[in-house]
Amino acid sequence: MLSYVPLPELERIRSLDTAPTERAAAFADACRINTLTMIEHAGSGHIGTSFSAMDIVSWLQLEVLRDDDRYFSSKGHDAPGLYSILIGLGLLPFDKLFALRRLGGLPGHPDVLTTPQVVTNTGSLGMGISKARGFVLTDRLAGRSGDVYVLTGDGELQEGQFWESLQPTANRGLGEITVVVDRNKLQSDTWVSQVSDLGDLGRKVEAFGWAVARCDGHDLGAFSAALAELRESAPGRPKLLVADTLKGAGVGFMEPRDLPQAETSLYGFHSGAPGPATYARGLEELVARLNERLGRIGADDVRLEERAAPARTPPERPQRLIQAYGEALVAEAEREPSLVALDGDLRLDTGLVPFQERFPERFFECGIAEQDMVSQAGAMALAGLLPVCHSFACFLTPRAAEQVFNNASEGTKVLYHGSLVGLVPGGPGHSHQSVRDIALMGSVPGMAALEPYCEDETRRAVEWAVRDAEGPVYLRLVSPPWPLGFDPPAAELVEGRGTVLREGETGTFVCTGPVLVSQAWAACERLEGWGLIAVPWLRGIDGAWLAKVAQGTIVCVDNHVLPGGQGEAVLSAFAASAPEAAARTRLVGVDRVPECGANDEVLRVHGLDAEGLCASAGAA
Amino acid sequence: MLSYVPLPELERIRSLDTAPTERAAAFADACRINTLTMIEHAGSGHIGTSFSAMDIVSWLQLEVLRDDDRYFSSKGHDAPGLYSILIGLGLLPFDKLFALRRLGGLPGHPDVLTTPQVVTNTGSLGMGISKARGFVLTDRLAGRSGDVYVLTGDGELQEGQFWESLQPTANRGLGEITVVVDRNKLQSDTWVSQVSDLGDLGRKVEAFGWAVARCDGHDLGAFSAALAELRESAPGRPKLLVADTLKGAGVGFMEPRDLPQAETSLYGFHSGAPGPATYARGLEELVARLNERLGRIGADDVRLEERAAPARTPPERPQRLIQAYGEALVAEAEREPSLVALDGDLRLDTGLVPFQERFPERFFECGIAEQDMVSQAGAMALAGLLPVCHSFACFLTPRAAEQVFNNASEGTKVLYHGSLVGLVPGGPGHSHQSVRDIALMGSVPGMAALEPYCEDETRRAVEWAVRDAEGPVYLRLVSPPWPLGFDPPAAELVEGRGTVLREGETGTFVCTGPVLVSQAWAACERLEGWGLIAVPWLRGIDGAWLAKVAQGTIVCVDNHVLPGGQGEAVLSAFAASAPEAAARTRLVGVDRVPECGANDEVLRVHGLDAEGLCASAGAA
Repeated sequence: MLSYVPLPELERIRSLDTAPTERAAAFADACRINTLTMIEHAGSGHIGTSFSAMDIVSWLQLEVLRDDDRYFSSKGHDAPGLYSILIGLGLLPFDKLFALRRLGGLPGHPDVLTTPQVVTNTGSLGMGISKARGFVLTDRLAGRSGDVYVLTGDGELQEGQFWESLQPTANRGLGEITVVVDRNKLQSDTWVSQVSDLGDLGRKVEAFGWAVARCDGHDLGAFSAALAELRESAPGRPKLLVADTLKGAGVGFMEPRDLPQAETSLYGFHSGAPGPATYARGLEELVARLNERLGRIGADDVRLEERAAPARTPPERPQRLIQAYGEALVAEAEREPSLVALDGDLRLDTGLVPFQERFPERFFECGIAEQDMVSQAGAMALAGLLPVCHSFACFLTPRAAEQVFNNASEGTKVLYHGSLVGLVPGGPGHSHQSVRDIALMGSVPGMAALEPYCEDETRRAVEWAVRDAEGPVYLRLVSPPWPLGFDPPAAELVEGRGTVLREGETGTFVCTGPVLVSQAWAACERLEGWGLIAVPWLRGIDGAWLAKVAQGTIVCVDNHVLPGGQGEAVLSAFAASAPEAAARTRLVGVDRVPECGANDEVLRVHGLDAEGLCASAGAA
Repeated sequence: MLSYVPLPELERIRSLDTAPTERAAAFADACRINTLTMIEHAGSGHIGTSFSAMDIVSWLQLEVLRDDDRYFSSKGHDAPGLYSILIGLGLLPFDKLFALRRLGGLPGHPDVLTTPQVVTNTGSLGMGISKARGFVLTDRLAGRSGDVYVLTGDGELQEGQFWESLQPTANRGLGEITVVVDRNKLQSDTWVSQVSDLGDLGRKVEAFGWAVARCDGHDLGAFSAALAELRESAPGRPKLLVADTLKGAGVGFMEPRDLPQAETSLYGFHSGAPGPATYARGLEELVARLNERLGRIGADDVRLEERAAPARTPPERPQRLIQAYGEALVAEAEREPSLVALDGDLRLDTGLVPFQERFPERFFECGIAEQDMVSQAGAMALAGLLPVCHSFACFLTPRAAEQVFNNASEGTKVLYHGSLVGLVPGGPGHSHQSVRDIALMGSVPGMAALEPYCEDETRRAVEWAVRDAEGPVYLRLVSPPWPLGFDPPAAELVEGRGTVLREGETGTFVCTGPVLVSQAWAACERLEGWGLIAVPWLRGIDGAWLAKVAQGTIVCVDNHVLPGGQGEAVLSAFAASAPEAAARTRLVGVDRVPECGANDEVLRVHGLDAEGLCASAGAA
């Protein structure tokens, strides 16, 4: 059972006749309860960062922002916290509390089109100040005036764009801009200081011509005073307030008080739902804390309402590509002493923990600094190493697009691991759903690109990349454990070719990755005479082979946009070596910015679930 | 006639029995002469930055670097200066002096594959320190030791990657790294202070944990002392030495002493050859300066040798797309008051000077900071403006790839101007030859993309983008004035369609841009029965129309790699609406990292000149 603070109670708390700081702190705790419930209901979401910023954002929303002002979070993954506050203020419909990460609900990261109450789309890190400047310069041009408050993370400050945006903002004297750094000292995996220490943050930002102050981000009296003093003392300069916070603040066991300051420490509440038992413990603590606050100011205890928790069944016999990748990388590194791994603060999500444990001296944590990581890897390759760069595809492939090309122009071999590819998981939203990465990486001359559909093929892809590839390789990996609906047959990895999973005379689906292969398999079960070929190669496809084995109408399905995807690569291969097959080929893929929602919702709305593929086959 | 310092004279000068600083200064002046001649012979190249860094680089090469040390320039466009020095040291064959920007010669920017004497490929800005760290970490892992010296520009320091790379380098205590900033205070168009002032550079870099010093970069005694002191005082920290220099140093009229400190000032010697008269004046001054130096130390005057200057004929009746673009943008801005222009320090090259003059308050100079520019534009669009972002395609489209997608996810309309596209000009080399930009921009959902082939179509494309497009638009423009070989007919711009320039029953070339259209036209003149259709649309092509008007074998030609280019978009359109046409379509495009050379050389070696297209037609 889930508990939540209903709207009348939120209204009561934010109208309490007490000191504004007490009121805001109580409101923040009520919103923490709803955020925890929202995330547990959704099955995923960012608790730690929502909680660390909750007091600050509550204060800004309740006491600071005026009509023409704007507030947004540059980190963006604290969206559940913001949504709870907006719901508590009556600015979002209350029932959206149970629509986080659902189609038509509240996206995992801010989205102006579905949620006009948010100011701009974030979740791609480091863009906040650039955007704030765009707002202020537009206002000035239009003769409007309004302040812009930007919340940033601290791990986020490793991104070059943050630093790139500082000096021009100071040069233009944009005193309308106030940045608050939610300095919770933890990023995705572990301590910021262990990933890529920020040094003396205040001194650095001050050197760029900004006015800087520091305070406790959970002491609203101190925060309010620091903010006021900063704004008064430097009217014509942009301002940055470093607010010291605790990740997971409000729930003792979610705060990192006992997490050792070590490179191998892993923080447990960055993302993901807590699960029933942990949820209940966290809820209990938050309710006690809120009631204590309310009692101190003579108000009644909070009255909660309840709602059933949604049932969740884990996938059956899923393919775990990330785990298979991580194991294969360690195995290859045992054979190949020049292999080193570089990570962009996602070692858990990219399967690198075993590598780091086995080869600590060959593991390079680069933080959220993809450009720096990729150029560093380029020099390592020139100097004789075989570097493997890791991050989510949505960050690695666009952020470092120029650096990847620069490396390729040197004729060296650098490997790139991009995971979290395609439409699913659908919960984080378009900032994280990577549907352009094949186009980005596959347009680099000489770049091989592979996406396996099962664990065994993942191992073979890693082996091929390390042992056989002559130039750079992009490995594209679906992240969530995913059931195929069948047992993948043992198969060799042959350059340019794939595995005929089932034969069909009427038509043949060509695709890769466990998500699409499972849906195409299910479609074949419903259709008459349709076959399925899984082709891991995203470039360098053997068109003559494919034309021969793919019977009937060929429907290429992409977990990616059509331009620059695998389907166009198939057409291109046919044009070169089997022109007749081009005339019987149709392409299906993602045709717009990805929608946010549960995995099945997202596949359905994009027409890439089994039903959609049946329809595509029928129309083909 | 061109004059140069022959190798025996260079050897004499670098072996003079005098103070090392005097010797290095004389050697630098001799290399200035050869650099000037090299660039005048090549017809293009970067004089200003080569001259500002010449004393520093000469000193490092003659007196500082040991066997295991590395030196490279992060800005990279000072390559002619470095080549002259390497030639003077006997490390490059002397005859390469007359092979700058020629096929098989010395590329416009450093390239390790054709010039193993250079350490790494640069010319894409801001990557230097990241690469230096890669070298040092590799050396440490291998138990090797060596120092790395990196030269940077100052305009270059506007790039976020520079700042992103500072802190991790300090955190790892990489005392092996010394960065020298060639602080000539001018970037591509004008004063750094007018483009995007750097603020207190020393204080900023120091705040990142680096050891910093400053000196006169033309006083080698001061430079040498500052370098030695810095290295002694901070052995375990990375070091940065700000060396104050003059752009164009050594030739009075190339130094910016009289250039006003104003936003509209334009420096004349950033790139391009000086031309015969200016060359002669510059040479005279350099020779006098060198001889005065030699006289002071009791050495003989320099003995020059001569060589005929290559003949150059300007193109006849060329299409000037950039100029047409600039005029069209002003015309649209007169009608559309929300239109604002953002520039990435390339206002001359992107045709923005008339716009800046006409609408100074609607012109936003962003400097070399593409990510910041694009995110700023995104917020401007959300707030009601129609922003147009400008840069070279090679920088804009990969560097800001994530920011462009983020903007598109907000459903706003932002226009992007990417020029210097495709293989030509072939002189700058692969860092500037943009052959991935269609894939990068055309994979953004909802992005329209056009590349016109003539001035008139350029105007119509701008009108369409401003007036009719509902979402974001990428405008892709060939930069050099280029003759078509025929007069373009008057034609409407119809969405998804193009202009049938000549009919042919045997086959039809489909392409766009003045470079390819001129080559395909010339190919048609030689072939029997071949036609030519110019299709400006890179996405959203009307396949049914094209299948109808394109007769015989269709050869799509891309001034771009095949993956994600126009040819694949044509195949994709055919697959959707005219499958039979897909079977008679062949794709031709750039199949590797672009070669550097004269324009005709580069088109020929990539098979995209008229002769190559005839061969492709024959094979199709």
